[in-house]
Amino acid sequence: MTQLQQGASNGPVLRAREANRHHHGMATLILLRHGQSEWNLSNQFTGWYDCDLTPHGCDEAAAAAGLLAAAGVLPDICHTSLQKRAVRTANLVLDGLDRLWLPVRRDWRLNERHYGNLTGLDKAETKRKYGDEQLLAWRRGYDTPPPPIEDSNPFNPNGLAQWAHLPPELVPSMECLKDVVARMLPYWFDAIVPDLQAGNVVLVVAHGNSLRALVKHLDDIADEDITDLDIPTGQPIVYELGANMRPLEARPVAERYLGDPEVIRAAAEAVKRQAG
Amino acid sequence: MTQLQQGASNGPVLRAREANRHHHGMATLILLRHGQSEWNLSNQFTGWYDCDLTPHGCDEAAAAAGLLAAAGVLPDICHTSLQKRAVRTANLVLDGLDRLWLPVRRDWRLNERHYGNLTGLDKAETKRKYGDEQLLAWRRGYDTPPPPIEDSNPFNPNGLAQWAHLPPELVPSMECLKDVVARMLPYWFDAIVPDLQAGNVVLVVAHGNSLRALVKHLDDIADEDITDLDIPTGQPIVYELGANMRPLEARPVAERYLGDPEVIRAAAEAVKRQAG
Repeated sequence: MTQLQQGASNGPVLRAREANRHHHGMATLILLRHGQSEWNLSNQFTGWYDCDLTPHGCDEAAAAAGLLAAAGVLPDICHTSLQKRAVRTANLVLDGLDRLWLPVRRDWRLNERHYGNLTGLDKAETKRKYGDEQLLAWRRGYDTPPPPIEDSNPFNPNGLAQWAHLPPELVPSMECLKDVVARMLPYWFDAIVPDLQAGNVVLVVAHGNSLRALVKHLDDIADEDITDLDIPTGQPIVYELGANMRPLEARPVAERYLGDPEVIRAAAEAVKRQAG
Repeated sequence: MTQLQQGASNGPVLRAREANRHHHGMATLILLRHGQSEWNLSNQFTGWYDCDLTPHGCDEAAAAAGLLAAAGVLPDICHTSLQKRAVRTANLVLDGLDRLWLPVRRDWRLNERHYGNLTGLDKAETKRKYGDEQLLAWRRGYDTPPPPIEDSNPFNPNGLAQWAHLPPELVPSMECLKDVVARMLPYWFDAIVPDLQAGNVVLVVAHGNSLRALVKHLDDIADEDITDLDIPTGQPIVYELGANMRPLEARPVAERYLGDPEVIRAAAEAVKRQAG
Protein backbone atom coordinates (compact mmCIF):
# COMPACT_ATOMS: atom_id res chain seq x y z
CA MET A 1 0.00 0.00 0.00
CA THR A 2 1.46 3.35 -0.98
CA GLN A 3 1.59 6.36 1.32
CA LEU A 4 -1.10 7.97 -0.84
CA GLN A 5 -3.47 5.00 -0.53
CA GLN A 6 -2.98 4.92 3.23
CA GLY A 7 -3.75 8.60 3.42
CA ALA A 8 -6.89 8.30 1.36
CA SER A 9 -8.34 5.63 3.64
CA ASN A 10 -7.32 7.04 6.99
CA GLY A 11 -8.10 10.44 8.48
CA PRO A 12 -5.39 10.49 11.17
CA VAL A 13 -2.78 9.44 8.61
CA LEU A 14 -3.87 12.32 6.39
CA ARG A 15 -3.49 14.69 9.31
CA ALA A 16 -0.11 13.19 10.15
CA ARG A 17 0.95 13.76 6.56
CA GLU A 18 -0.08 17.39 6.86
CA ALA A 19 2.06 17.76 9.98
CA ASN A 20 4.83 15.94 8.17
CA ARG A 21 4.50 18.32 5.27
CA HIS A 22 5.04 21.27 7.54
CA HIS A 23 7.89 19.64 9.40
CA HIS A 24 9.81 18.52 6.36
CA GLY A 25 9.17 21.66 4.30
CA MET A 26 7.15 19.95 1.61
CA ALA A 27 6.70 22.26 -1.35
CA THR A 28 4.30 22.33 -4.29
CA LEU A 29 5.58 22.94 -7.82
CA ILE A 30 3.31 23.34 -10.85
CA LEU A 31 4.81 22.87 -14.32
CA LEU A 32 2.89 24.08 -17.35
CA ARG A 33 3.84 24.03 -21.01
CA HIS A 34 2.40 27.05 -22.89
CA GLY A 35 -0.83 26.58 -24.84
CA GLN A 36 -0.82 25.70 -28.54
CA SER A 37 1.32 28.19 -30.47
CA GLU A 38 1.01 29.32 -34.07
CA TRP A 39 3.96 27.14 -35.01
CA ASN A 40 2.71 24.15 -33.01
CA LEU A 41 -0.28 24.41 -35.34
CA SER A 42 1.72 24.88 -38.54
CA ASN A 43 4.18 22.16 -37.43
CA GLN A 44 7.32 24.30 -37.76
CA PHE A 45 10.45 24.12 -35.59
CA THR A 46 10.08 27.11 -33.27
CA GLY A 47 12.83 27.21 -30.66
CA TRP A 48 13.65 30.85 -29.87
CA TYR A 49 11.37 32.25 -32.58
CA ASP A 50 8.78 34.31 -30.72
CA CYS A 51 5.46 33.18 -32.16
CA ASP A 52 2.21 33.81 -30.31
CA LEU A 53 -0.52 31.48 -29.01
CA THR A 54 -3.36 30.43 -31.28
CA PRO A 55 -6.93 31.12 -30.07
CA HIS A 56 -7.04 27.42 -29.12
CA GLY A 57 -3.82 27.91 -27.15
CA CYS A 58 -5.45 30.78 -25.24
CA ASP A 59 -8.39 28.49 -24.46
CA GLU A 60 -5.96 25.83 -23.22
CA ALA A 61 -4.40 28.36 -20.85
CA ALA A 62 -7.83 29.31 -19.48
CA ALA A 63 -8.67 25.60 -19.07
CA ALA A 64 -5.43 25.05 -17.17
CA ALA A 65 -6.52 27.76 -14.73
CA GLY A 66 -9.82 25.89 -14.33
CA LEU A 67 -8.00 22.64 -13.50
CA LEU A 68 -5.80 24.37 -10.91
CA ALA A 69 -8.78 26.12 -9.31
CA ALA A 70 -10.79 22.87 -9.20
CA ALA A 71 -7.86 21.06 -7.56
CA GLY A 72 -7.29 23.93 -5.12
CA VAL A 73 -3.67 24.22 -6.24
CA LEU A 74 -3.24 27.99 -6.22
CA PRO A 75 0.15 29.45 -7.14
CA ASP A 76 1.75 32.12 -4.95
CA ILE A 77 4.45 33.06 -7.43
CA CYS A 78 5.15 32.50 -11.10
CA HIS A 79 8.20 32.02 -13.33
CA THR A 80 8.20 32.11 -17.13
CA SER A 81 10.59 32.32 -20.04
CA LEU A 82 11.02 35.51 -22.08
CA GLN A 83 8.90 34.03 -24.87
CA LYS A 84 5.48 35.40 -25.73
CA ARG A 85 3.72 32.04 -25.83
CA ALA A 86 4.80 31.31 -22.24
CA VAL A 87 4.27 34.85 -20.89
CA ARG A 88 0.80 35.05 -22.42
CA THR A 89 -0.10 31.59 -21.11
CA ALA A 90 1.01 32.65 -17.62
CA ASN A 91 -0.98 35.89 -17.86
CA LEU A 92 -4.09 33.97 -18.93
CA VAL A 93 -3.69 31.39 -16.15
CA LEU A 94 -3.24 34.09 -13.50
CA ASP A 95 -6.21 35.98 -14.93
CA GLY A 96 -8.33 32.82 -14.81
CA LEU A 97 -7.35 32.34 -11.16
CA ASP A 98 -8.04 36.03 -10.37
CA ARG A 99 -4.35 36.30 -9.41
CA LEU A 100 -3.06 38.82 -11.93
CA TRP A 101 -1.25 40.49 -9.04
CA LEU A 102 1.11 37.56 -8.30
CA PRO A 103 4.85 38.18 -8.39
CA VAL A 104 6.20 36.97 -11.73
CA ARG A 105 9.76 36.56 -12.93
CA ARG A 106 10.76 36.04 -16.57
CA ASP A 107 14.10 34.63 -17.58
CA TRP A 108 15.78 33.41 -20.76
CA ARG A 109 16.98 30.27 -18.94
CA LEU A 110 13.42 28.91 -19.12
CA ASN A 111 13.28 29.49 -22.92
CA GLU A 112 12.57 26.67 -25.35
CA ARG A 113 15.54 24.76 -26.83
CA HIS A 114 17.19 26.84 -29.58
CA TYR A 115 16.62 24.82 -32.76
CA GLY A 116 19.51 26.40 -34.67
CA ASN A 117 19.00 26.51 -38.41
CA LEU A 118 16.00 24.19 -38.20
CA THR A 119 14.12 27.24 -36.86
CA GLY A 120 11.19 27.96 -39.16
CA LEU A 121 11.39 24.66 -41.08
CA ASP A 122 8.30 22.51 -41.52
CA LYS A 123 8.83 19.31 -39.52
CA ALA A 124 7.35 16.95 -42.10
CA GLU A 125 9.30 18.62 -44.91
CA THR A 126 12.50 18.40 -42.85
CA LYS A 127 11.88 14.68 -42.47
CA ARG A 128 11.50 14.23 -46.22
CA LYS A 129 14.58 16.34 -46.91
CA TYR A 130 17.00 14.94 -44.32
CA GLY A 131 15.51 11.50 -43.70
CA ASP A 132 13.95 9.79 -40.71
CA GLU A 133 17.19 8.99 -38.98
CA GLN A 134 18.69 12.49 -39.08
CA LEU A 135 15.46 14.10 -37.96
CA LEU A 136 15.10 11.61 -35.12
CA ALA A 137 18.66 12.35 -34.04
CA TRP A 138 17.99 16.10 -33.99
CA ARG A 139 14.65 15.78 -32.19
CA ARG A 140 15.44 12.92 -29.85
CA GLY A 141 19.21 12.73 -29.48
CA TYR A 142 20.11 14.02 -26.02
CA ASP A 143 23.38 15.53 -27.16
CA THR A 144 22.86 15.97 -30.90
CA PRO A 145 22.68 19.69 -31.69
CA PRO A 146 20.99 20.86 -34.90
CA PRO A 147 23.03 22.93 -37.39
CA PRO A 148 23.74 26.45 -36.05
CA ILE A 149 21.38 29.27 -36.98
CA GLU A 150 22.49 31.23 -40.06
CA ASP A 151 22.22 35.00 -40.48
CA SER A 152 20.32 34.33 -43.68
CA ASN A 153 17.60 32.32 -41.90
CA PRO A 154 14.52 34.54 -42.24
CA PHE A 155 13.33 33.41 -38.79
CA ASN A 156 16.68 33.92 -37.02
CA PRO A 157 15.56 34.99 -33.51
CA ASN A 158 18.98 35.97 -32.17
CA GLY A 159 18.59 39.71 -32.76
CA LEU A 160 15.33 40.06 -30.82
CA ALA A 161 15.10 42.73 -28.11
CA GLN A 162 14.20 39.99 -25.61
CA TRP A 163 17.84 38.95 -25.19
CA ALA A 164 19.58 42.16 -26.20
CA HIS A 165 20.58 42.60 -22.54
CA LEU A 166 22.49 39.30 -22.42
CA PRO A 167 26.25 39.06 -23.01
CA PRO A 168 26.49 37.59 -26.52
CA GLU A 169 28.16 34.38 -25.34
CA LEU A 170 24.95 33.44 -23.51
CA VAL A 171 22.82 33.55 -26.67
CA PRO A 172 23.11 30.12 -28.32
CA SER A 173 23.23 29.49 -32.05
CA MET A 174 21.74 26.01 -31.48
CA GLU A 175 21.10 23.68 -28.56
CA CYS A 176 20.69 19.99 -27.85
CA LEU A 177 18.64 18.94 -24.81
CA LYS A 178 21.86 18.52 -22.84
CA ASP A 179 22.62 22.21 -23.47
CA VAL A 180 19.15 23.14 -22.24
CA VAL A 181 19.68 21.17 -19.02
CA ALA A 182 22.98 22.98 -18.47
CA ARG A 183 21.58 26.48 -18.91
CA MET A 184 18.21 25.84 -17.22
CA LEU A 185 19.48 24.26 -13.97
CA PRO A 186 21.16 27.41 -12.58
CA TYR A 187 17.77 29.13 -12.73
CA TRP A 188 16.11 26.20 -10.99
CA PHE A 189 18.61 26.28 -8.14
CA ASP A 190 19.06 30.05 -7.85
CA ALA A 191 15.56 31.42 -8.54
CA ILE A 192 12.89 28.73 -8.23
CA VAL A 193 14.18 26.63 -5.32
CA PRO A 194 14.40 29.65 -2.94
CA ASP A 195 10.74 30.45 -3.69
CA LEU A 196 9.78 26.84 -2.89
CA GLN A 197 11.88 26.86 0.27
CA ALA A 198 10.05 30.01 1.37
CA GLY A 199 6.84 27.98 1.33
CA ASN A 200 5.33 29.28 -1.90
CA VAL A 201 3.31 27.21 -4.36
CA VAL A 202 5.38 27.92 -7.48
CA LEU A 203 4.05 27.93 -11.04
CA VAL A 204 6.60 27.52 -13.86
CA VAL A 205 5.22 28.23 -17.33
CA ALA A 206 7.74 27.16 -19.92
CA HIS A 207 8.33 24.97 -22.98
CA GLY A 208 8.47 21.37 -24.15
CA ASN A 209 12.23 21.11 -23.78
CA SER A 210 12.94 23.41 -20.84
CA LEU A 211 10.30 21.46 -18.88
CA ARG A 212 11.75 18.16 -20.13
CA ALA A 213 15.09 19.35 -18.76
CA LEU A 214 13.53 20.14 -15.39
CA VAL A 215 11.62 16.84 -15.20
CA LYS A 216 14.86 15.01 -16.07
CA HIS A 217 16.51 16.64 -13.09
CA LEU A 218 13.60 16.20 -10.67
CA ASP A 219 12.95 12.54 -11.51
CA ASP A 220 16.59 11.71 -12.27
CA ILE A 221 15.72 10.33 -15.71
CA ALA A 222 18.56 8.85 -17.79
CA ASP A 223 19.90 10.74 -20.85
CA GLU A 224 18.66 8.04 -23.20
CA ASP A 225 15.15 7.97 -21.71
CA ILE A 226 14.28 11.64 -21.28
CA THR A 227 13.79 12.41 -24.97
CA ASP A 228 10.89 9.94 -25.05
CA LEU A 229 8.98 12.20 -22.69
CA ASP A 230 6.39 14.30 -24.52
CA ILE A 231 4.73 17.07 -22.54
CA PRO A 232 1.43 18.26 -24.01
CA THR A 233 0.50 21.95 -24.20
CA GLY A 234 -1.61 23.57 -21.49
CA GLN A 235 -1.74 20.60 -19.07
CA PRO A 236 -0.65 21.37 -15.48
CA ILE A 237 1.75 18.91 -13.82
CA VAL A 238 1.93 19.00 -10.02
CA TYR A 239 4.96 17.87 -7.99
CA GLU A 240 5.05 17.61 -4.23
CA LEU A 241 8.68 18.06 -3.22
CA GLY A 242 10.49 17.29 0.01
CA ALA A 243 12.96 19.54 1.78
CA ASN A 244 15.66 18.10 -0.51
CA MET A 245 13.71 19.61 -3.46
CA ARG A 246 13.10 16.16 -4.93
CA PRO A 247 9.72 14.43 -5.38
CA LEU A 248 8.30 13.02 -2.14
CA GLU A 249 7.07 10.00 -4.08
CA ALA A 250 8.64 8.42 -7.17
CA ARG A 251 5.95 8.35 -9.85
CA PRO A 252 5.92 8.65 -13.63
CA VAL A 253 5.21 12.19 -14.85
CA ALA A 254 2.11 10.79 -16.54
CA GLU A 255 0.55 10.36 -13.09
CA ARG A 256 1.19 13.94 -12.03
CA TYR A 257 -1.16 15.68 -14.48
CA LEU A 258 -4.30 17.34 -13.15
CA GLY A 259 -6.17 16.76 -16.42
CA ASP A 260 -8.00 13.70 -17.68
CA PRO A 261 -5.45 10.87 -18.24
CA GLU A 262 -6.99 9.88 -21.60
CA VAL A 263 -6.77 13.46 -22.86
CA ILE A 264 -3.16 13.73 -21.67
CA ARG A 265 -2.17 10.46 -23.36
CA ALA A 266 -3.76 11.49 -26.66
CA ALA A 267 -2.11 14.92 -26.49
CA ALA A 268 1.33 13.46 -25.76
CA GLU A 269 0.91 11.04 -28.67
CA ALA A 270 0.02 13.97 -30.92
CA VAL A 271 3.28 15.73 -29.92
CA LYS A 272 5.21 12.57 -30.78
CA ARG A 273 3.56 12.33 -34.19
CA GLN A 274 4.28 15.97 -35.08
CA ALA A 275 7.12 15.04 -37.41
CA GLY A 276 5.18 12.14 -38.89
CA MET B 1 15.09 80.43 -24.83
CA THR B 2 14.64 77.12 -23.09
CA GLN B 3 17.11 74.27 -23.37
CA LEU B 4 14.52 72.38 -25.44
CA GLN B 5 14.11 75.22 -27.94
CA GLN B 6 17.87 75.54 -28.33
CA GLY B 7 18.13 71.81 -28.96
CA ALA B 8 15.39 71.78 -31.54
CA SER B 9 17.08 74.53 -33.60
CA ASN B 10 20.66 73.36 -33.37
CA GLY B 11 22.16 69.97 -34.27
CA PRO B 12 25.39 70.28 -32.27
CA VAL B 13 23.45 71.37 -29.21
CA LEU B 14 21.22 68.31 -29.58
CA ARG B 15 24.29 66.10 -29.74
CA ALA B 16 25.77 67.88 -26.77
CA ARG B 17 22.55 67.22 -24.88
CA GLU B 18 22.85 63.53 -25.75
CA ALA B 19 26.40 63.46 -24.37
CA ASN B 20 25.14 65.41 -21.38
CA ARG B 21 22.40 62.87 -20.89
CA HIS B 22 24.89 60.08 -20.76
CA HIS B 23 27.27 61.99 -18.52
CA HIS B 24 24.69 63.13 -16.03
CA GLY B 25 22.73 59.89 -16.01
CA MET B 26 19.54 61.33 -17.43
CA ALA B 27 16.71 58.84 -17.00
CA THR B 28 13.29 58.43 -18.59
CA LEU B 29 10.24 57.74 -16.43
CA ILE B 30 6.78 57.01 -17.84
CA LEU B 31 3.77 57.37 -15.56
CA LEU B 32 0.45 55.88 -16.60
CA ARG B 33 -2.86 55.79 -14.77
CA HIS B 34 -4.79 52.57 -15.51
CA GLY B 35 -7.51 52.69 -18.18
CA GLN B 36 -11.15 53.35 -17.30
CA SER B 37 -12.32 50.92 -14.60
CA GLU B 38 -15.80 49.56 -13.95
CA TRP B 39 -16.14 51.90 -10.98
CA ASN B 40 -14.72 54.89 -12.87
CA LEU B 41 -17.68 54.29 -15.15
CA SER B 42 -20.26 53.77 -12.40
CA ASN B 43 -18.77 56.73 -10.44
CA GLN B 44 -18.15 54.80 -7.21
CA PHE B 45 -15.31 55.34 -4.74
CA THR B 46 -12.93 52.46 -5.52
CA GLY B 47 -9.72 52.70 -3.51
CA TRP B 48 -8.51 49.20 -2.69
CA TYR B 49 -11.59 47.48 -4.13
CA ASP B 50 -10.27 45.36 -6.99
CA CYS B 51 -12.56 46.15 -9.91
CA ASP B 52 -11.54 45.40 -13.47
CA LEU B 53 -11.11 47.58 -16.57
CA THR B 54 -14.09 48.29 -18.80
CA PRO B 55 -13.73 47.40 -22.52
CA HIS B 56 -13.12 51.14 -23.08
CA GLY B 57 -10.39 51.01 -20.41
CA CYS B 58 -8.73 48.14 -22.32
CA ASP B 59 -8.86 50.24 -25.48
CA GLU B 60 -7.27 53.14 -23.60
CA ALA B 61 -4.40 50.86 -22.54
CA ALA B 62 -3.86 49.76 -26.13
CA ALA B 63 -3.95 53.40 -27.26
CA ALA B 64 -1.34 54.30 -24.62
CA ALA B 65 0.95 51.66 -26.15
CA GLY B 66 0.39 53.30 -29.53
CA LEU B 67 1.40 56.72 -28.16
CA LEU B 68 4.56 55.30 -26.59
CA ALA B 69 5.50 53.43 -29.77
CA ALA B 70 4.88 56.52 -31.92
CA ALA B 71 7.06 58.63 -29.61
CA GLY B 72 9.76 55.95 -29.51
CA VAL B 73 9.60 55.87 -25.70
CA LEU B 74 9.99 52.15 -25.07
CA PRO B 75 10.03 50.89 -21.48
CA ASP B 76 12.75 48.47 -20.32
CA ILE B 77 11.08 47.59 -17.05
CA CYS B 78 7.66 48.00 -15.50
CA HIS B 79 6.23 48.58 -12.01
CA THR B 80 2.56 48.27 -11.07
CA SER B 81 0.35 48.08 -8.01
CA LEU B 82 -1.29 44.81 -6.91
CA GLN B 83 -4.63 45.98 -8.34
CA LYS B 84 -6.20 44.32 -11.35
CA ARG B 85 -6.96 47.54 -13.22
CA ALA B 86 -3.28 48.53 -13.11
CA VAL B 87 -1.85 45.05 -13.76
CA ARG B 88 -4.16 44.51 -16.72
CA THR B 89 -3.37 47.97 -18.12
CA ALA B 90 0.35 47.19 -17.86
CA ASN B 91 -0.13 43.79 -19.54
CA LEU B 92 -2.06 45.42 -22.39
CA VAL B 93 0.54 48.18 -22.85
CA LEU B 94 3.40 45.66 -22.91
CA ASP B 95 1.43 43.49 -25.32
CA GLY B 96 0.79 46.48 -27.59
CA LEU B 97 4.52 47.25 -27.57
CA ASP B 98 5.39 43.56 -28.22
CA ARG B 99 7.24 43.63 -24.88
CA LEU B 100 5.29 41.05 -22.86
CA TRP B 101 8.68 39.70 -21.74
CA LEU B 102 9.74 42.82 -19.80
CA PRO B 103 10.63 42.48 -16.14
CA VAL B 104 7.65 43.60 -14.07
CA ARG B 105 7.31 44.20 -10.36
CA ARG B 106 4.02 44.56 -8.52
CA ASP B 107 3.74 46.17 -5.11
CA TRP B 108 0.99 47.33 -2.76
CA ARG B 109 2.82 50.63 -2.22
CA LEU B 110 1.67 51.73 -5.69
CA ASN B 111 -1.98 50.94 -4.85
CA GLU B 112 -4.72 53.55 -5.08
CA ARG B 113 -5.54 55.58 -1.98
CA HIS B 114 -7.65 53.49 0.45
CA TYR B 115 -11.01 55.26 0.57
CA GLY B 116 -12.05 53.79 3.92
CA ASN B 117 -15.76 53.43 4.37
CA LEU B 118 -16.48 55.53 1.29
CA THR B 119 -15.41 52.43 -0.69
CA GLY B 120 -18.30 51.39 -2.90
CA LEU B 121 -20.35 54.56 -2.44
CA ASP B 122 -21.68 56.45 -5.43
CA LYS B 123 -19.86 59.78 -5.60
CA ALA B 124 -22.88 61.88 -6.51
CA GLU B 125 -25.00 60.21 -3.83
CA THR B 126 -22.25 60.77 -1.25
CA LYS B 127 -22.31 64.45 -2.17
CA ARG B 128 -26.07 64.66 -1.63
CA LYS B 129 -25.81 62.75 1.64
CA TYR B 130 -22.82 64.46 3.26
CA GLY B 131 -22.87 67.82 1.47
CA ASP B 132 -20.46 69.58 -0.88
CA GLU B 133 -18.06 70.72 1.76
CA GLN B 134 -17.52 67.34 3.43
CA LEU B 135 -17.12 65.56 0.11
CA LEU B 136 -14.64 68.17 -1.09
CA ALA B 137 -12.65 67.76 2.13
CA TRP B 138 -12.50 63.97 1.69
CA ARG B 139 -11.61 64.14 -1.98
CA ARG B 140 -9.35 67.17 -1.97
CA GLY B 141 -8.08 67.67 1.55
CA TYR B 142 -4.41 66.65 1.63
CA ASP B 143 -4.59 65.33 5.17
CA THR B 144 -8.33 64.64 5.63
CA PRO B 145 -8.87 60.88 5.88
CA PRO B 146 -12.29 59.40 5.10
CA PRO B 147 -14.05 57.34 7.82
CA PRO B 148 -12.32 53.97 8.37
CA ILE B 149 -13.60 50.93 6.48
CA GLU B 150 -16.14 48.89 8.41
CA ASP B 151 -16.35 45.10 8.48
CA SER B 152 -19.96 45.43 7.40
CA ASN B 153 -19.05 47.34 4.23
CA PRO B 154 -19.98 44.87 1.45
CA PHE B 155 -17.01 46.11 -0.61
CA ASN B 156 -14.45 45.95 2.21
CA PRO B 157 -11.26 45.00 0.31
CA ASN B 158 -9.05 44.35 3.33
CA GLY B 159 -9.44 40.57 3.30
CA LEU B 160 -8.33 40.09 -0.31
CA ALA B 161 -5.57 37.58 -1.05
CA GLN B 162 -3.57 40.38 -2.70
CA TRP B 163 -2.36 41.71 0.66
CA ALA B 164 -2.67 38.57 2.77
CA HIS B 165 1.14 38.42 2.85
CA LEU B 166 1.47 41.85 4.48
CA PRO B 167 1.80 42.33 8.23
CA PRO B 168 -1.65 43.61 9.28
CA GLU B 169 -0.33 46.99 10.42
CA LEU B 170 0.60 47.80 6.80
CA VAL B 171 -2.97 47.36 5.53
CA PRO B 172 -4.74 50.72 6.03
CA SER B 173 -8.36 51.14 7.05
CA MET B 174 -8.42 54.53 5.26
CA GLU B 175 -5.92 56.96 3.77
CA CYS B 176 -5.63 60.65 3.00
CA LEU B 177 -3.26 61.72 0.21
CA LYS B 178 -0.61 62.49 2.81
CA ASP B 179 -0.75 58.83 3.90
CA VAL B 180 -0.35 57.73 0.29
CA VAL B 181 2.75 59.90 -0.13
CA ALA B 182 4.23 58.37 3.03
CA ARG B 183 3.71 54.74 2.00
CA MET B 184 4.48 55.25 -1.72
CA LEU B 185 7.81 57.09 -1.39
CA PRO B 186 9.79 54.15 0.07
CA TYR B 187 8.95 52.18 -3.09
CA TRP B 188 10.01 55.09 -5.29
CA PHE B 189 13.38 55.35 -3.58
CA ASP B 190 14.04 51.64 -3.01
CA ALA B 191 12.62 49.98 -6.13
CA ILE B 192 12.06 52.48 -8.95
CA VAL B 193 15.03 54.82 -8.54
CA PRO B 194 17.60 51.97 -8.76
CA ASP B 195 16.04 50.87 -12.07
CA LEU B 196 16.32 54.44 -13.39
CA GLN B 197 19.89 54.75 -12.16
CA ALA B 198 20.73 51.54 -14.02
CA GLY B 199 19.76 53.32 -17.24
CA ASN B 200 16.35 51.75 -17.80
CA VAL B 201 13.35 53.50 -19.25
CA VAL B 202 10.89 52.78 -16.44
CA LEU B 203 7.11 52.47 -16.83
CA VAL B 204 4.99 52.92 -13.69
CA VAL B 205 1.35 51.91 -14.13
CA ALA B 206 -0.62 53.01 -11.09
CA HIS B 207 -3.58 55.06 -9.88
CA GLY B 208 -4.95 58.60 -9.66
CA ASN B 209 -3.68 59.14 -6.13
CA SER B 210 -0.49 57.07 -6.05
CA LEU B 211 0.61 58.95 -9.20
CA ARG B 212 -0.48 62.25 -7.68
CA ALA B 213 1.75 61.39 -4.72
CA LEU B 214 4.68 60.67 -7.03
CA VAL B 215 4.16 63.85 -9.11
CA LYS B 216 3.97 65.84 -5.86
CA HIS B 217 7.38 64.51 -4.92
CA LEU B 218 8.97 64.88 -8.35
CA ASP B 219 7.74 68.43 -8.98
CA ASP B 220 7.83 69.48 -5.34
CA ILE B 221 4.19 70.59 -5.38
CA ALA B 222 2.76 72.14 -2.20
CA ASP B 223 0.28 70.21 -0.04
CA GLU B 224 -2.50 72.67 -0.81
CA ASP B 225 -1.92 72.56 -4.59
CA ILE B 226 -1.46 68.86 -5.32
CA THR B 227 -5.09 67.87 -4.82
CA ASP B 228 -6.06 70.10 -7.75
CA LEU B 229 -4.09 67.84 -10.07
CA ASP B 230 -6.34 65.45 -12.00
CA ILE B 231 -4.63 62.69 -13.93
CA PRO B 232 -6.78 61.18 -16.68
CA THR B 233 -6.91 57.42 -17.31
CA GLY B 234 -4.70 55.82 -19.95
CA GLN B 235 -2.61 58.90 -20.85
CA PRO B 236 1.20 58.42 -20.63
CA ILE B 237 3.20 61.14 -18.86
CA VAL B 238 6.94 61.28 -19.64
CA TYR B 239 9.56 62.72 -17.30
CA GLU B 240 13.21 63.19 -18.13
CA LEU B 241 15.12 63.08 -14.86
CA GLY B 242 18.61 64.15 -13.96
CA ALA B 243 21.09 62.19 -11.86
CA ASN B 244 19.43 63.69 -8.79
CA MET B 245 16.21 61.88 -9.86
CA ARG B 246 14.39 65.19 -10.26
CA PRO B 247 13.00 66.63 -13.52
CA LEU B 248 15.68 68.12 -15.79
CA GLU B 249 13.28 70.92 -16.66
CA ALA B 250 10.56 72.43 -14.49
CA ARG B 251 7.30 72.16 -16.42
CA PRO B 252 3.66 71.66 -15.49
CA VAL B 253 2.58 68.01 -15.67
CA ALA B 254 0.06 69.09 -18.31
CA GLU B 255 2.99 69.59 -20.71
CA ARG B 256 4.43 66.11 -20.15
CA TYR B 257 1.61 64.09 -21.69
CA LEU B 258 2.26 62.29 -24.98
CA GLY B 259 -1.40 62.53 -26.02
CA ASP B 260 -3.30 65.39 -27.63
CA PRO B 261 -3.42 68.35 -25.19
CA GLU B 262 -7.10 69.04 -25.91
CA VAL B 263 -8.02 65.43 -25.18
CA ILE B 264 -5.97 65.48 -21.97
CA ARG B 265 -7.59 68.71 -20.78
CA ALA B 266 -11.08 67.39 -21.43
CA ALA B 267 -10.27 64.10 -19.68
CA ALA B 268 -8.82 65.87 -16.62
CA GLU B 269 -11.93 68.07 -16.45
CA ALA B 270 -14.12 64.96 -16.56
CA VAL B 271 -12.22 63.50 -13.57
CA LYS B 272 -12.78 66.74 -11.67
CA ARG B 273 -16.52 66.65 -12.42
CA GLN B 274 -16.92 63.02 -11.31
CA ALA B 275 -18.53 64.01 -8.03
CA GLY B 276 -20.67 66.71 -9.66
